[in-house]
This record gives sequence, structure tokens and C-alpha cells, in this order.
Amino acid sequence: MTRLKRLTAALQTTTGTVDALLVTHPQDVRYLTGFTGSNAALVIPARSTPKTKPMLFTDGRYIEQARQQTRNAGVVIAQDPVLREACVWMQAQNMRHCGFDAEHTTVTALDGMRQWLPARQRRSFFQPLAPVASRLREIKDAEEIIRLRAAAALGCTLFENLLTVIMPGKREVEVAAQLEFAARMAGSEAMSFETIVASGARSALPHGHATTQRLPRRGFVVLDFGVMLSGYCSDMTRTVHLGRATAAERDAYAAVLEAQMAAVAAVRPGTSCGEVDEAARSVLRRAKLAEFFTHSTGHGVGLEIHEGPRIAAKQQQKLEQGMVITIEPGIYLPGRFGIRIEDMVLVTRNGAEVLTPATKAWIEL
Amino acid sequence: MTRLKRLTAALQTTTGTVDALLVTHPQDVRYLTGFTGSNAALVIPARSTPKTKPMLFTDGRYIEQARQQTRNAGVVIAQDPVLREACVWMQAQNMRHCGFDAEHTTVTALDGMRQWLPARQRRSFFQPLAPVASRLREIKDAEEIIRLRAAAALGCTLFENLLTVIMPGKREVEVAAQLEFAARMAGSEAMSFETIVASGARSALPHGHATTQRLPRRGFVVLDFGVMLSGYCSDMTRTVHLGRATAAERDAYAAVLEAQMAAVAAVRPGTSCGEVDEAARSVLRRAKLAEFFTHSTGHGVGLEIHEGPRIAAKQQQKLEQGMVITIEPGIYLPGRFGIRIEDMVLVTRNGAEVLTPATKAWIEL
Repeated sequence: MTRLKRLTAALQTTTGTVDALLVTHPQDVRYLTGFTGSNAALVIPARSTPKTKPMLFTDGRYIEQARQQTRNAGVVIAQDPVLREACVWMQAQNMRHCGFDAEHTTVTALDGMRQWLPARQRRSFFQPLAPVASRLREIKDAEEIIRLRAAAALGCTLFENLLTVIMPGKREVEVAAQLEFAARMAGSEAMSFETIVASGARSALPHGHATTQRLPRRGFVVLDFGVMLSGYCSDMTRTVHLGRATAAERDAYAAVLEAQMAAVAAVRPGTSCGEVDEAARSVLRRAKLAEFFTHSTGHGVGLEIHEGPRIAAKQQQKLEQGMVITIEPGIYLPGRFGIRIEDMVLVTRNGAEVLTPATKAWIEL
Repeated sequence: MTRLKRLTAALQTTTGTVDALLVTHPQDVRYLTGFTGSNAALVIPARSTPKTKPMLFTDGRYIEQARQQTRNAGVVIAQDPVLREACVWMQAQNMRHCGFDAEHTTVTALDGMRQWLPARQRRSFFQPLAPVASRLREIKDAEEIIRLRAAAALGCTLFENLLTVIMPGKREVEVAAQLEFAARMAGSEAMSFETIVASGARSALPHGHATTQRLPRRGFVVLDFGVMLSGYCSDMTRTVHLGRATAAERDAYAAVLEAQMAAVAAVRPGTSCGEVDEAARSVLRRAKLAEFFTHSTGHGVGLEIHEGPRIAAKQQQKLEQGMVITIEPGIYLPGRFGIRIEDMVLVTRNGAEVLTPATKAWIEL
């Protein structure tokens, strides 16, 4: 019950006025109960008693699966829409105020939820809250760190093996195909996002998904990919060079690497996310490349590929022990080339541990 | 400009009171402008003039990509959050009311959008609308039908080739890995959802994602997968049997196939989605298997794997020429076995065309 208990405690700090929290975001439901189905409403009473334990509402597709997976909550297979049955159940429990996650609830969903309440309760019953469960998930527990470590390690192994595949004339999608096949054979259930293989001038596209373009004889190849292993995402980027590089290309790579390592070195509990971003950005500023670093430095990663915290300019949020974040500065010179280097980093008690030890040294293939 | 013109026309039918529509759902943005980035706000003036053409706001990661991809709209690379710059721009155009898609906008996003308005406009500026763009996308145009046909055909080819891979002792994830590798090599940019390979008793899980379990010597294997090709999703399910089947298994398969074909036969313009669902369900009712058909019959498919319309019990929405839907009844006997058969079907002028011609005959491997 640890996660649920942490949630209940967080709920009581946030507000004293709700009788329950409604959780519908699938990764939050999975985090709290283990249930991985795509359609669920989880009601967590603010004060758990034997009579009012957490209840998970899902639909008929998940009868078997919900029974097998769900821990710490009762299961109801809803005949009506799950949110409707959740509302009816809360009414039956005499609940009067329910918090919901305003960041993951659409305007239409909220209207729908309100329709299933008695008219007199429609305005007051649902209280918008910050995403309590997603916020908890920013700090990974021991089990999660094991899984993230395994996902990150698999990513590194795949990268090392991919170095024999990358050669001039190979299509970007073929590189992606071999990477993804190897990921699957190693037990990954999916890629955590659409694989980026961006070569030659396409490396200047930060999100250059693999195309049928052939790798050039000379130029950079940006590889940005992640696996999902037991639900947890890895995320890493390496940039390699095909053929002989120019001095400008080597200098640019060295600057990005220095920026990346400076940001990793800045990671420790108590440092703000903005300071970590600035550590990378200031290196590129000195190298007169900051204008080409057109995105933020990183993000949390866990059950979702993009979670809190945001590692971006001016972000005041402080890093905490147990957070797992990416550090991924890059530069993009339109029409010429792009370079990005990304690690997954665990915030430890005193500093940081890089979870993706694959080499970041200059690689010329 | 055809899609944008259809949108503008739909907008004027829906309501006469908005000056513009704000589109943020990524697939809607792609549909209307071609831009495929993950972060965009598209403002479409209700009455387009040379001075007020549609404007696409995105961030620095997409400078190059937005320039290359975007048709029919101006591009602004936002320094601030894209929604903020979109709001500022609408203010500068003296717009007073803007529609937004309440089904794809979260409560938090709406609060955020309102903050960037002058106080006197906060309550009245943003008007919730039904999803105008997503609704347009239910009817596919000629270009989309070509792409969906290609995606569906690739899915069928992959299935045929997979029949030589499926054998007792092979792990479910290995089957998925080979399928996905072949999809990539054929040009697919991603799978349209997590591949389902559910064998033996696991076939009774409607969403049984591939696991490390080995295929049994005797039993069903449900294969449900889709590719994404040029952004468009395919979706198909076939169920094959390993080893000698019992009479009960064969009878159940025959009943699901009859139900599936009855639903396909019911597809034509003017028929309601509920009638198509009932065509499948009534066959299974006669076979005394309806209680095991625990989900709806199908859904629209296009740029997203799940779109409108919903092919489910009591749905009043009428089918229209140009819709592409799935027809996928299934039965799930907990602890014993499951069977599902799914085609993609185009609603034609007089009836229906199955886009997934792979055989549905009984296959024993």
C-alpha cells in the first residue's frame, strides 16, 4: 500500500475538503494499482476504511486482466461508462466532494462527469486539483529505479550493437527496423516513442523520424530512441559521424558534449531545474552556438516518456533524490547538420548517476 | 485548401458567433496543414481574408520541419508557450470569440489559455465546441483512402508472411518482433498500437499484448496489429489455431466469423452504427455466445487508430460514404480461449469494401 498511502498523505496536504480522488490517467492508474488497461476510473477515498477501499472501474474487455493485475483496490466491471459508474458509487458512499486531475481531464469529460450527478451537486462535487498522482511519480521508488535502470541498460546495449549496422547507403528506416527488432527480441514491449534516425542535413531536424533516405557517405547521424521494458521508458541520444568530419563539425560536437557533461555535473538534490538548463546553455553560449540550441535541456522519464520535472530555462522546481531525468542539449544548423547527446540521469543523495553509460566519445564510422 | 474550406463551412454551420477556431489536437493539425510536430496551435479565422490567413504556432524544435511541411497556413516559431502566442495574435486581430475543441482540451489548458487574455475577455473569449476538425476527419477524402488502402494492404501481406513464423515453442514477443521488423522494412514508420499476440488461454484477454510466453502445441493465437504508413493506421485481427482443434473451438470460430461477415454485410450509407453492431451481436446471441462478446463491434480509423464513428450498441450515428471503420467482433471464454476477427471496411456509395482481404477461413498450423 506504500504508493497509495503516499497518495492519501499528499491528498490531505493539498486540501482538507475532498472525500476522494478520481484518477483516470492510465499511467497513474497503473502506478497505483498495477492495472494496465486503457480505460479505467480509480476512486481513492481520502480516508480509507474497511468499508471504503479504493475502487477500480473498467469495462468488459478487461474482466480477466483486471482480476489478474489489480492490487490494493476492488474491481468493478462497468456496464455503463466507467465514469458514470464511478459517480454512482461515490453517491452511494455519501461522498460530497471529489478531487480530479485537471491536467489530464478534458473539458468534455468534466461536463460528462457532472451530468451523472444530482443537479444540486453539479457545481460543487468535482474539485480541480493539480496532478497529485503524476506529481508523486516524479520521485521514483526502489522498484521503479530497478526497472528504469534495466530499460536504460538495454538501450545502451542496443546502441552498441547498432554501430555495426550504420553505414553509408543503408536507409534510415532499416537502421530503425534493426534497432526495434533487437529491442523486441530482448523483451521490450514497445518503443517509448517513434525512433529518430536523422542523417546528413536531416540531422538538423530535432525530431527527424527515420525515413527511407539513405545514410550519406559523409555526415552526422542522430540516433534518439527508447525502449519500454515492464512499462518503463528509456530515452537516449547519440550522434555519430560517417566519413571524415570537418574541423567545424568536430568543434561543434565537442561543444555539445561539454554542455551535456556540464549539465550532468550540475544535477544534485536542491539544484533548480533552471540551473541545470543554464549549465548546458552557458557552455554553448561561450561557443557562440546557443542560438542553435532551440529546445529545453531535458525532462523526467518513467512510466511515460515525458514526465515532470521540466529541465528548462527559469524553471524554479528543485531536483529531489529519486528523480530520473534526461539531459539532452543539442544544436541544429538548418541545411547543414545537427548534434544531440542525451543521457538518463538518476538524482542520488549527493549528486547524480548516469543510467546510460554508452560512450559519448567522438565516433567516426 | 479543400480541407480548410470544409472546416470553415462546418464552422459557420455550427455557430455564427466565433471569429476563429483554435486547433491543437496533433492529428487535426496534421490533417489541415500537413505539419506533424508534437506541439502546435493552429488558429483558423472563421472568415479567411488575405490579412487573416490561418496561422500555425509551434516551438523552436520545429523551425525547419514547420517550414518544410506546412501548407495553407503562416508559421510562427513561438518563444513563449504556443497557446500564449496564439492568444496574443488573436488579440492583435481584434478577435472577440474563439471556438476550441472541448474533447481535446484539458481543464488546465483552458485555464492557461484564459490567463493570457485581458481580464474583461476571460469569461467570454473561448467557446467550447464539439470537435469540428475530428468530425470532418470521419469522412475520408480520396488521398486518405489511398493511404488507408496501402496501410491495410501492407497489414495483410505481413499477416500472410507471419504464418510461416507461428509455431509451437516460439515466444509471443518473437512473433511480434518479426512482424514489426517486416513492417519497418516495408516503410511503416511505427505500429499503430501495441501488437497483440495472445496464445492459448491468453487468447481470452481481448487486449493480450505479446509476452515472453511460448506458443502452445494446441490452442488459438489471436493476432491483432496495425502499421502506420504515411501517418495512416491499419488495424486487423486474425485468429489461427495451432494443432488439432476441438469441435467446440471450431463451432465458436464459425460463429464469430458468421457474426463478423453479417456486420460487414450490414455496412452501407444510411445504416446506423448500432444496427451494424446488432448484426454481429444477434448472430452470437443465436449461437448462445453473446455474453462472451464483451466489447463493441468497431471504430473509425485514419490518422488515429481510434476515431469516430463508434460501432457500438444503440449508436444512432449513420454511416456515410467515405468512412473507414473496423468490424471486429470477438468472444472470450475466461481460462479457456478467445477468438476475434477484424477487417477494415470502407463505406462506399452503395455498400462496403473490405480493405483487408487476407483470408478469414479456418487456419490450422
